[in-house]
Amino acid sequence: MPRLTTALTELLGIEHPILLAPMAKISGGRLAAAVSEAGGLGLLGGGYAEADWIDPAFRDAGNGRIGIGFITWALDARPDSLTRALAHRPAAVMLSFGDPAPYAPAIKQAGATLICQVQRLDEAQRAVALGADVIVAQGQDAGGHGRLGRGTLAFVRAAAEALPVPVVAAGGIGDGRGLAAALMLGAAGVLMGTRFYAAEEAIAPAPVKQALVEGRGDDTVFGGVFDRLRGPAWPAPFAGRSLANALTERWGGREQELVGDLLEAERAAYRAADQAGDMGRKVVWAGEVVDMIERSDPAATIVRRTVAEAVEALSGAARFLTA
Amino acid sequence: MPRLTTALTELLGIEHPILLAPMAKISGGRLAAAVSEAGGLGLLGGGYAEADWIDPAFRDAGNGRIGIGFITWALDARPDSLTRALAHRPAAVMLSFGDPAPYAPAIKQAGATLICQVQRLDEAQRAVALGADVIVAQGQDAGGHGRLGRGTLAFVRAAAEALPVPVVAAGGIGDGRGLAAALMLGAAGVLMGTRFYAAEEAIAPAPVKQALVEGRGDDTVFGGVFDRLRGPAWPAPFAGRSLANALTERWGGREQELVGDLLEAERAAYRAADQAGDMGRKVVWAGEVVDMIERSDPAATIVRRTVAEAVEALSGAARFLTA
Ligand SMILES: Cc1cc2nc3c(=O)[nH]c(=O)nc-3n(C[C@H](O)[C@H](O)[C@H](O)COP(=O)(O)O)c2cc1C
Ligand SMILES: Cc1cc2nc3c(=O)[nH]c(=O)nc-3n(C[C@H](O)[C@H](O)[C@H](O)COP(=O)(O)O)c2cc1C
Repeated sequence: MPRLTTALTELLGIEHPILLAPMAKISGGRLAAAVSEAGGLGLLGGGYAEADWIDPAFRDAGNGRIGIGFITWALDARPDSLTRALAHRPAAVMLSFGDPAPYAPAIKQAGATLICQVQRLDEAQRAVALGADVIVAQGQDAGGHGRLGRGTLAFVRAAAEALPVPVVAAGGIGDGRGLAAALMLGAAGVLMGTRFYAAEEAIAPAPVKQALVEGRGDDTVFGGVFDRLRGPAWPAPFAGRSLANALTERWGGREQELVGDLLEAERAAYRAADQAGDMGRKVVWAGEVVDMIERSDPAATIVRRTVAEAVEALSGAARFLTA
Repeated sequence: MPRLTTALTELLGIEHPILLAPMAKISGGRLAAAVSEAGGLGLLGGGYAEADWIDPAFRDAGNGRIGIGFITWALDARPDSLTRALAHRPAAVMLSFGDPAPYAPAIKQAGATLICQVQRLDEAQRAVALGADVIVAQGQDAGGHGRLGRGTLAFVRAAAEALPVPVVAAGGIGDGRGLAAALMLGAAGVLMGTRFYAAEEAIAPAPVKQALVEGRGDDTVFGGVFDRLRGPAWPAPFAGRSLANALTERWGGREQELVGDLLEAERAAYRAADQAGDMGRKVVWAGEVVDMIERSDPAATIVRRTVAEAVEALSGAARFLTA
């Protein structure tokens, strides 16, 4: 299979410019190792920085060369989790949703590539000034947490033009045409979350993967309902994109009404629904790219197919030109 | 100069797959003619369907082969404006923001290409069933009116995969790399608004064009403040993306508080600010792509540069491949 070489593959020493999003507790050792094994780079979902998740996750990855990602504001309460992760000599550490400044020096000193995921261009510029080696430009097409404001296409284009480091596109990319488009925009690769959430190796119940297969991009919604009902509480301005369900229909846009006794009652109801596996109420974080997900595949299949499609699109790109 | 040939250029009989967005009263005859003359297709901004704007706009376009766009819900109150436009034998009619069903037959019978701009995949599918020849998939990266929900990258990819007619990408495209990315996603062309708003021929005061040059994508906001303060009132779920200013900062997210006497007072204040050319309060509809706008250029320069950049990006696309 041909390789796709970009500034990102050269910097990270990988074959294909595809990163696994560090989805909290979903991107476990098996999934991360499978993505790396297939030529991309797997990032463990260190998420809320719970220390005792880290060692087993690295162990599950075997000897695979992988990285790890943390939710930055969560690391603020549990900074030791970074130390624990760095002891495994990760190839890269990705920080999202908060100020990377307190952690950048330790990460770089440990020899890991510092990847910062951002939602604004000014934030990207600050991250580069702090030493970020790679910027993940996350648009609001994305699944999971993010921030309303910038769409992937416009944001990636602007970031690639403005920044002196490799830019990785995140949000709405689920196949090789998305990867090819990202490269045309000037990005050096892509980071995919939702698509890998549906992968065989992702730590997620089968009904969740089935919901991703059946879900439609039109029916994803962005908001804070589940952060309120399920927790943990996220700081402004962050919220998340999920599949719409009975709870987003009921509470979407009215999150601030969820307070006091009502909030306690709704929280208890959510916990019960969650434990019962009630797919009409459980959160399924997901991006618009669910439109393109037709089945749960092994991660290696996803990587290989994405590369093959991108190779086809890029090598056929000149067909649009007429002298 | 090489041409870019796609299903869109073949359908419309144009040289390059670039459409001018029919920006209400901004895309006048001179701008539309200039875009068509340069090899794209200019669409007059028929906007709110005011009948007496139409004849002079076509006259200003001279003998240029152009089309026209209307805001569909506005046409519902002034259906005769469509008849008046069709008398000019436009190459295409674009309908956005509402139900195209009542107008599709007359447009097609007049021999014009029916272009429908949509913000959801289900809406696209309905438009195709009604006879739309081209679908413009507008993502929330876009300037001007639209709908929160779908990002350009993810939406265009899904639409191109699902629809049997040429798909045009709209929202966040302002240069040739954006055009190349759209083609990689499977689109057959692009529709650009904000970028042409800053064109020399656009009907807009110089300070507005200067604001577009200076504006940053991070500082665009989506909401209903100006529809409330300036009117006309838009039906849900539509609102618009503009540059942030003192009024979006004050009222953004609190639009529903603008009622009664307060609304009347704020409306009067808006009218006064507008007439005084107060750029700290006047609405400037604009998309994230303002990041890429460095000056006001003739429309022909914009088309030519966009094509040249796209040709360069597409013909160099194979450089990413390594055997
Ligand atoms: C289920 C899910 C969980 C996520 N969890 C995290 C996380 O813990 N940390 C993080 O930085 N990003 C997280 N993200 C966001 C991803 O990093 C990425 O921006 C996003 O998945 C890209 O959009 P896509 O889902 O369309 O591929 C998550 C995304 C999903 C879908
Ligand atoms: C100033 C401005 C006015 C607009 N007016 C209209 C309009 O009257 N009718 C319409 O269908 N779309 C209108 N649009 C939206 C465009 O059709 C198009 O979707 C958008 O400009 C694409 O995004 P871009 O601005 O990033 O190019 C307008 C856009 C702008 C920027």
